[in-house]
Amino acid sequence: MDLTDKGILLVISGPAGTGKGTVVSNILARSDDYALSVSATTRAPRKGEVDGVQYHFVTRAQFEQKIEDGQMLEYAEYVGNYYGTPRERVDAMLEEGINVILEIEVVGAMKIKKLVPDAVTVLLLPPDYKTLEARLRGRGTNTEDDILKRLEQAKREVGNFASYDYIVINEDGASDEAALQIISIVDAEKHRTARNLHIPVDFMAD
Amino acid sequence: MDLTDKGILLVISGPAGTGKGTVVSNILARSDDYALSVSATTRAPRKGEVDGVQYHFVTRAQFEQKIEDGQMLEYAEYVGNYYGTPRERVDAMLEEGINVILEIEVVGAMKIKKLVPDAVTVLLLPPDYKTLEARLRGRGTNTEDDILKRLEQAKREVGNFASYDYIVINEDGASDEAALQIISIVDAEKHRTARNLHIPVDFMAD
Repeated sequence: MDLTDKGILLVISGPAGTGKGTVVSNILARSDDYALSVSATTRAPRKGEVDGVQYHFVTRAQFEQKIEDGQMLEYAEYVGNYYGTPRERVDAMLEEGINVILEIEVVGAMKIKKLVPDAVTVLLLPPDYKTLEARLRGRGTNTEDDILKRLEQAKREVGNFASYDYIVINEDGASDEAALQIISIVDAEKHRTARNLHIPVDFMAD
Repeated sequence: MDLTDKGILLVISGPAGTGKGTVVSNILARSDDYALSVSATTRAPRKGEVDGVQYHFVTRAQFEQKIEDGQMLEYAEYVGNYYGTPRERVDAMLEEGINVILEIEVVGAMKIKKLVPDAVTVLLLPPDYKTLEARLRGRGTNTEDDILKRLEQAKREVGNFASYDYIVINEDGASDEAALQIISIVDAEKHRTARNLHIPVDFMAD
């Protein structure tokens, strides 16, 4: 008798400056059981970008067809181009037992949770507001206006924290720990009875 | 900003022969963050039993008063004696940050879940029916009638598995692993947003 061998759709959100990218890389480096979902986009590939690696590059007509067919888990339009998560590829990986990571903001995260109720949503947060502000200023690449906008956005995201299943705090210099905590959350989720409805049959059959 | 420092009420059920006792001892030996809830009973102490260790020994009047005051998380009567879980002591330990383990059967487990919705319920199972049967027969101390009754009871308990939050399989000779899995489930649960409603305030305050 074994626990579920299906992958888990893992949605990770967090304010700009939280260190999501580093934590996600850390998870991917640590375990072959995880993969990052590759988004589809209608924008043209930039020099060096490879189809299926940075993005799936599709035409506007293809993208709109996928929306119509309910094949986009979530999508948005920025500066005249579509960006979105094609469901088919994600589902295939989940079937193979791969945990698929979506790094996505709160509105997209809630859409995913509605479409895929057994997705696990994690809000990654910096230790506190002051740390976030220091990190954003420390980058040195953002304008003051930009920093203030991001801080306001962060407050809104933290205010929405209860929409997520789990919270993980990314302490300074501890992205290892945050990655391990997220992996541990996914491992625990595999033990949920709701993911293991085959158990009573297997119990008698083995 | 820190995650909740409250303990978790951890309910562990499982058919006779699953090895609950060994797994629970393993958890207690591994971590000072866990304690076993001590039941109250109206039966007389046996030789060597110490009040507050094996049981809290109370009078029938005291026990019935506790029931009346809603101070018993769950209780049952066997052979003329009451056995139950006094709420007060459990609550005090949870406040101190101790995860309190209740080893209890399915009816009691469901009662607890109703009274304490943030309790975490784990069903510990043997790898399969045949293994359970072999373990029960291997004990050599049970009558055939007893074994059959326990096997029927086990089937019922497995059938109820979806009433539990989590399932953990106790493979042969792997009580270490089962203990670690339960500890990992409790750690993940501490990250649940529902247990961390203080976060938005702390985020701005720190």
